[in-house]
Amino acid sequence: MDSTPLYRQLAAHYLDAIRAGSLKPGDKLPSLRHLMRQHGISLSTALQLCRSMESEGWVEARERSGYFVRRPRRLSIAPMDEPAADRAPDPAQYVGIHAKVSDFVARRRQVPEKLDLSIARGAPELYPAEALRNAMTRALRQRPQMLAVAAPLKGHRQFREVLAQRSLRVGMTLSPEDILVTNGCIEALNLALRAVAQPGDTVAVESPTFYGLLQVLESLGLQALEIPTSPQTGLSIEALDLAIRTYDNIKAVVVVPHLQNPLGSVMPDAHKARLAQLCEQHAIPLIEDDTYSELIDAPMPPRALKSFDTSGNVIHCASLHKILAPGLRLGWMTAGRWQARVEMLKFAQTRNNEALSQAAAGEFMATGGYERHLRHLRQCLKTQREQTADAIAGFFPPGTRINLPPGGLQLWVELPERLSSWRVFETALAERIVVAPGTLFSNSSRFDHYLRINCGWPYGEAVDGALRRLGAIATDLCRAGAASAARAPASAPASPARPAPAWTGSAGADRAASPASAHPSPAA
Amino acid sequence: MDSTPLYRQLAAHYLDAIRAGSLKPGDKLPSLRHLMRQHGISLSTALQLCRSMESEGWVEARERSGYFVRRPRRLSIAPMDEPAADRAPDPAQYVGIHAKVSDFVARRRQVPEKLDLSIARGAPELYPAEALRNAMTRALRQRPQMLAVAAPLKGHRQFREVLAQRSLRVGMTLSPEDILVTNGCIEALNLALRAVAQPGDTVAVESPTFYGLLQVLESLGLQALEIPTSPQTGLSIEALDLAIRTYDNIKAVVVVPHLQNPLGSVMPDAHKARLAQLCEQHAIPLIEDDTYSELIDAPMPPRALKSFDTSGNVIHCASLHKILAPGLRLGWMTAGRWQARVEMLKFAQTRNNEALSQAAAGEFMATGGYERHLRHLRQCLKTQREQTADAIAGFFPPGTRINLPPGGLQLWVELPERLSSWRVFETALAERIVVAPGTLFSNSSRFDHYLRINCGWPYGEAVDGALRRLGAIATDLCRAGAASAARAPASAPASPARPAPAWTGSAGADRAASPASAHPSPAA
Repeated sequence: MDSTPLYRQLAAHYLDAIRAGSLKPGDKLPSLRHLMRQHGISLSTALQLCRSMESEGWVEARERSGYFVRRPRRLSIAPMDEPAADRAPDPAQYVGIHAKVSDFVARRRQVPEKLDLSIARGAPELYPAEALRNAMTRALRQRPQMLAVAAPLKGHRQFREVLAQRSLRVGMTLSPEDILVTNGCIEALNLALRAVAQPGDTVAVESPTFYGLLQVLESLGLQALEIPTSPQTGLSIEALDLAIRTYDNIKAVVVVPHLQNPLGSVMPDAHKARLAQLCEQHAIPLIEDDTYSELIDAPMPPRALKSFDTSGNVIHCASLHKILAPGLRLGWMTAGRWQARVEMLKFAQTRNNEALSQAAAGEFMATGGYERHLRHLRQCLKTQREQTADAIAGFFPPGTRINLPPGGLQLWVELPERLSSWRVFETALAERIVVAPGTLFSNSSRFDHYLRINCGWPYGEAVDGALRRLGAIATDLCRAGAASAARAPASAPASPARPAPAWTGSAGADRAASPASAHPSPAA
Repeated sequence: MDSTPLYRQLAAHYLDAIRAGSLKPGDKLPSLRHLMRQHGISLSTALQLCRSMESEGWVEARERSGYFVRRPRRLSIAPMDEPAADRAPDPAQYVGIHAKVSDFVARRRQVPEKLDLSIARGAPELYPAEALRNAMTRALRQRPQMLAVAAPLKGHRQFREVLAQRSLRVGMTLSPEDILVTNGCIEALNLALRAVAQPGDTVAVESPTFYGLLQVLESLGLQALEIPTSPQTGLSIEALDLAIRTYDNIKAVVVVPHLQNPLGSVMPDAHKARLAQLCEQHAIPLIEDDTYSELIDAPMPPRALKSFDTSGNVIHCASLHKILAPGLRLGWMTAGRWQARVEMLKFAQTRNNEALSQAAAGEFMATGGYERHLRHLRQCLKTQREQTADAIAGFFPPGTRINLPPGGLQLWVELPERLSSWRVFETALAERIVVAPGTLFSNSSRFDHYLRINCGWPYGEAVDGALRRLGAIATDLCRAGAASAARAPASAPASPARPAPAWTGSAGADRAASPASAHPSPAA
């Protein structure tokens, strides 16, 4: 016989109904009289039921009207722990993140119409497409010959001037000549890594980190050494220091100091200063991926890590992809003492970027419209993050943990009971909902019970329904005891031997190695 | 005393005047009476003088008017020899082409207003900038959201459809899914090489080959093995066969079968079939750079090397940069059994290309305007090549040799007496004329007495004057005995040791490693 008090059993019943969406925020709970009659309980038990649900934040009492379902209080969800940083991390083995990512991408691709919460990107309507279109049309009208001559190798002059000017705001004093325009931040990271390391070398990265970086490292034959990283303050300097003293083969450090992906952490200035000094002291090049700083909830972004650089040891990489226009591939970098080297590598890799996007972005960024756009974007994302966090607090199983980051596009969610995120991903995919399983964010299995959830889409019925279903799926799997260790996907080490035709030897992985051709659609 | 007949001595005097431009095509030679009086010679000697110049093609007799300077006959210039292909080539050492190219680029960059005959590119007016601009404006009007969503990873669908359709013309049967859009052909070559080889591996290339390829190989840590290549029929299959049998470490072969750069050779279909078979037989991936085939003087381009591929062993790379729009960075590739691998590498290297250029190019290429543009471009280039060849025949020193290619943007010129092309480059640069010294087209010194001369600019006074000066410079240097071996630039091996901050250890090379920021200008 169930020893749980009757009112708790009934509360669980109504909570299920709320999680399943049959009771929505604003809906009225049955009246006390109705509860008594329906469940054959006393007034006292009915009151206990309602008050316990009220005290847990599920319903609110409205005078003379009864109890109503409320938006769940996200504060009821516990924050994540800090990582242990007091022992040197194991050097990550080459476990073939490509195989995992490829599997993920291939499966996602098979689902044509889906709600994609797996990517870190804003909805199209959050970006100033019309202003950019007008700037492009003007540029084409004024200089049609732009299409018939090769663009400048380092990048469009006015665009680099605007980038140099804006860099002052984050403490970097640059001339346009110090700036190299690239195909997105990802090319900048490739060039930075190629400039300072060679195949077989070890590169220290945050743990967890975004799978794009792990792919780049693997594709360049570099080994990732994962350094514990705080959900609040980012890369642990102590852990990095220990790693540097333990291993003598670290050839570069890559960090996302602002709104780390996936954690959302922001590194305090004092940490940045120590990090820059530590790397300088050991002559280890420091690569800063500063893609998200404009998305922090503040009128001004924080100081760049590069601004603490005194010797040209920091390579700063950034992009407009997430903050201005996902349809453009505009990244840029300033590489300190590796500037000449990255310029030559860029020339050998892709030559110059096309001029038109740069001209349009440069024009728009020089106007007040750019700051207005950024303010609006930050405000929308803040609202969407909070709505998503509320929904997770409401719908996900007890024990779920989350840190609400001070900006950005996504939430990093820790599932209870080491629940396999891959199982959640697979089950949700069958219902055409896509999330990014934590499996993808490390070469270890350390984050197999985490999910990264995009907050880029405006919070509407489709997103609400998807989060509700995700919560129900996680709850069901928890009940079924689907611990992550038991059901993790087969992550057979991808053979680094060449010239195998694709990333792994198996036919399945061959197919899987094709990235999705359609861009993810927010339509449910 | 000079034993040369008097009329020959006088002919040399007038030839010098023609080469120096003091006598231009159309100018009248002094009358017989004037010649007799001025030089104190007999009528018979004056007639010998005029007739010998006429028989050599320098002047033409017009009835009752006298002798007039004519455009020189390029047939008077000797064709180049075939390379020796009967012994295995030496594996090229790592001599640091980057250092040479960097020096070249840095020096070129120092000259702001120049006539640039060093690059292989057409003048802006040869390209359909207005039609492309209109296509872009339409695409932006119809789909402004294009700028706010990420483009498809493999490339814009309609663009890939047009590419697939046009591939049929050169014997390739492709689906749009087989095509990956890249940032120019140079990124396609990077991806192809990264897919099939790893640092330290050896790659067979044509000799001479374009310095862009040598840079790519060096930047990827690959060794170039230069295979003798015919100015007429391209890569010597016999020499490659011998090299394969001699060395067992060749991991790829890269060829430009159509209008090889810099030779202008076109590989016969029978050679392509043998080459594809040879590589297939030895399981050596064959990378085809097919950038120029649409520039061959024929209504239809020849069959692609890829069309002789029966097992997915050929990776086909191409670009629109030289044939449609130098301002766009649109390349593409189809990689046979390495398709999944190059797609993943492209994703990790630069993600997707922007959509707008692809949409505009795809729209234009589906119209009859594209074929009309290509016909017009071919005709202009043919005229310009012939005018340039005429000028070289007229102005360059005796012993200069040339092959007139059946299409394309450039001429490859062999200087007499192993004259140092670097000296010619340096001397011409001081007069703001830029040519590409043969030094850049090989890791060996084999082509130090060659020049590559661009024919992309419409032949006008500026180009004519520049070629005239180049001829005079070469003539002067020949007289001064500036043999190439004696005055070649210091090509100190660039240290492959990392993490040196730039391509070579010297401060000069550091500076030099920055590619020119301004695009080369056709203005004199």
